Amino acid sequence: MNTKQSDNLLKNKMNRRQMLKLTGAGTAGVLIGATGFGSVANSFGYSIVDDNMTATEKVPFYGSHQSGIVTNVQKHIYFASLNVIVTSKEELKDLFEMWTPLAVRMMNGEEIAEPTTNSYVAAQDTGEAVGLSASNLTITFGVGPTLFEKSKLGLGHLKPTELEALPHFPKDQLDESYSSGDLCIQACADDPQVAFHAVRNLIRSASGKVILKWTQAGFNSIPVEKNKKQTPRNLFAFKDGTGNPNVNDTKEMNDVVWVQSNESVPWMTGGTYLVARRIQMHLETWDRTALGEQEATFGRHRDSGAPIGKTGEFEDMELARKDSSGNPIIPTTSHVHLAKLVDDRILRRSFSYSSGMDPKTGVFDAGLLFISFQKHPKQFINIQNSLGRIDKLNEYITHRGSATFACFPGIQKGSFVGESLFKA
Amino acid sequence: MNTKQSDNLLKNKMNRRQMLKLTGAGTAGVLIGATGFGSVANSFGYSIVDDNMTATEKVPFYGSHQSGIVTNVQKHIYFASLNVIVTSKEELKDLFEMWTPLAVRMMNGEEIAEPTTNSYVAAQDTGEAVGLSASNLTITFGVGPTLFEKSKLGLGHLKPTELEALPHFPKDQLDESYSSGDLCIQACADDPQVAFHAVRNLIRSASGKVILKWTQAGFNSIPVEKNKKQTPRNLFAFKDGTGNPNVNDTKEMNDVVWVQSNESVPWMTGGTYLVARRIQMHLETWDRTALGEQEATFGRHRDSGAPIGKTGEFEDMELARKDSSGNPIIPTTSHVHLAKLVDDRILRRSFSYSSGMDPKTGVFDAGLLFISFQKHPKQFINIQNSLGRIDKLNEYITHRGSATFACFPGIQKGSFVGESLFKA
Repeated sequence: MNTKQSDNLLKNKMNRRQMLKLTGAGTAGVLIGATGFGSVANSFGYSIVDDNMTATEKVPFYGSHQSGIVTNVQKHIYFASLNVIVTSKEELKDLFEMWTPLAVRMMNGEEIAEPTTNSYVAAQDTGEAVGLSASNLTITFGVGPTLFEKSKLGLGHLKPTELEALPHFPKDQLDESYSSGDLCIQACADDPQVAFHAVRNLIRSASGKVILKWTQAGFNSIPVEKNKKQTPRNLFAFKDGTGNPNVNDTKEMNDVVWVQSNESVPWMTGGTYLVARRIQMHLETWDRTALGEQEATFGRHRDSGAPIGKTGEFEDMELARKDSSGNPIIPTTSHVHLAKLVDDRILRRSFSYSSGMDPKTGVFDAGLLFISFQKHPKQFINIQNSLGRIDKLNEYITHRGSATFACFPGIQKGSFVGESLFKA
Repeated sequence: MNTKQSDNLLKNKMNRRQMLKLTGAGTAGVLIGATGFGSVANSFGYSIVDDNMTATEKVPFYGSHQSGIVTNVQKHIYFASLNVIVTSKEELKDLFEMWTPLAVRMMNGEEIAEPTTNSYVAAQDTGEAVGLSASNLTITFGVGPTLFEKSKLGLGHLKPTELEALPHFPKDQLDESYSSGDLCIQACADDPQVAFHAVRNLIRSASGKVILKWTQAGFNSIPVEKNKKQTPRNLFAFKDGTGNPNVNDTKEMNDVVWVQSNESVPWMTGGTYLVARRIQMHLETWDRTALGEQEATFGRHRDSGAPIGKTGEFEDMELARKDSSGNPIIPTTSHVHLAKLVDDRILRRSFSYSSGMDPKTGVFDAGLLFISFQKHPKQFINIQNSLGRIDKLNEYITHRGSATFACFPGIQKGSFVGESLFKA
């Protein structure tokens, strides 16, 4: 190839990318915006379509809080738990400083660096997202309890006391290969390759500094009815997220999700705690179960998502309702009844997964990558303890993985991910 | 719950579904149709947007050939390989007869049966696709060589001689847990839950008749540029499918894909052979490789997809081109050069996968669910043998799974999947 050819190629590349920025990336958003999607009502906690679904399909990186928490739930997730192999706090800080602009660029729909023009070096960006839009990518960073136990890092005194591996719950059958981790990267996007690309490039750029602990891909399929997005269904066909607090209600988010000053260690103010549970769903058993029994298990109707005996998904549960024989209409052993027994609330942001076949049993390895955000892990723990041994849903699910992470507060321009921890 | 409440619930259900049919399902297609997506040019073999992307997002089930072969490639696949445990040809025929209307309904975006109104029985449809559109679902059925070796089924004399497990290729490291199978169901859709739902419900309805052998989910992320869909990139960031024959060219499809009378056993006329290979891509090794070396490995430029030294993705390879020193511009050990050395052509219809972490090595378990269609497996075999030991790509990939299936001809109304085999 001669120089002229190279130049032509380069020009072609740049034109292609520029063109993309000007036209391709925004197309779907414009379409959607033009047909009424922009103005629909709120549902299942997350506002169904808000400014995230603009012409650019971009979620802002900077703000009071990290993205990917109150952001409208996307169609895909690639979740990675990492262990760190750096041996000093300075190196760890450098890692997060290095990651910050990469995350910004990827959330903008850009490659992590300008394209290579030198064919003798490896491209900085792995390239598989070239031509795809930002796809509402969000990247959320957190740190796990084990990070603070690595004495060389000298972070032990900054560990929030509430940041611990979750206690053992009845029926837990945890597999260490889907549990714990020093760090997490939650990449969510409306495109699976964009989410995977984000995690891959962050990990690649951190070569020699982190190793994979576990990863899980997942999806949410969001029904659309009369141009309004609806609560997605999990693989048991029940709507998941109906009872969520409203992410657009600042007070509610401050009450449930965002750590307020004096509520945790200072560096967590504006942050939140992430709980991840890999929950296998025994589809074959579930599918043999009568519809009425399934509904008694959840405490809701399958199709409408309404509390049993009601018709609207968002109607009040009214747990005290009794039938003519004096029995509770919503069984006391149902999932929602038990979850409502405690006052604690959490923000659920889960994804389904289907990961081939369980080689031990020959059935689908499928279920829920349960993710929740709360200002204190005890909110999740209290709910899970209330479900305890008596939750009827226990017959149909097995918790296989568990992890908890402290997600940093939001990042301001000029700052970097985790600055509050490293400057504490 | 009293009768009136039940009635209200039921009415609510039906309204919901009817509404869906009238409005929700078609929305995205209408949007797309209205903005020029309907009239764009052909690319990478598959026509980019054709009548499949109509207001209903439905692919026809009936026709001369099965769907999911020359159908525009969708965003998601759920591929299942099954073994049969029925013990007679009649039972197997009954299975395919039972599956046929279920496949028709699901490709129409309907549940496999009308919703249950009796809460004392299990719902016939597992329900997780309720509210989602047909999502261009296609369901493709095939039979593997091992089916014909089950003497109780009495099908041995109908086995096409070319339907065999693929021969061992250099560098193969096959894992039986991702190989072979008596039957395959390939479900492709623009929504992952719709694809999974299709396989789940077919298998559930065949309880006691089939068992899972292996399954794999995958995805294709299709860039859009100036309102035109582009060839998707694999996880090595190279465009995959550029060299495909044109699915809209009947003659080409008859030459490459569809079995003609006298070319195989009679029951395969109008059918095709499917090759599936689960190819792990060693992303970490690839990502350390210089861009020029990556391009020399494929024989194409990464960004444009053009043959090395050219600028247009669809330009002729012109393998004979030499540089000023007399060396071939496209290396003779490159993937495309070796693949072009033989005259055989195949229709590639692959999907990327990212299935967590490889527990043995701690790296991403990610790669390509390679799928190709051809009228005779030797077309694939000849190409793969040409790649042989010298394909530069071998350094970066490992074939972990392998299967081959004979896909029946298309189904006419009143007939059923596989009728030509069972009536032979």
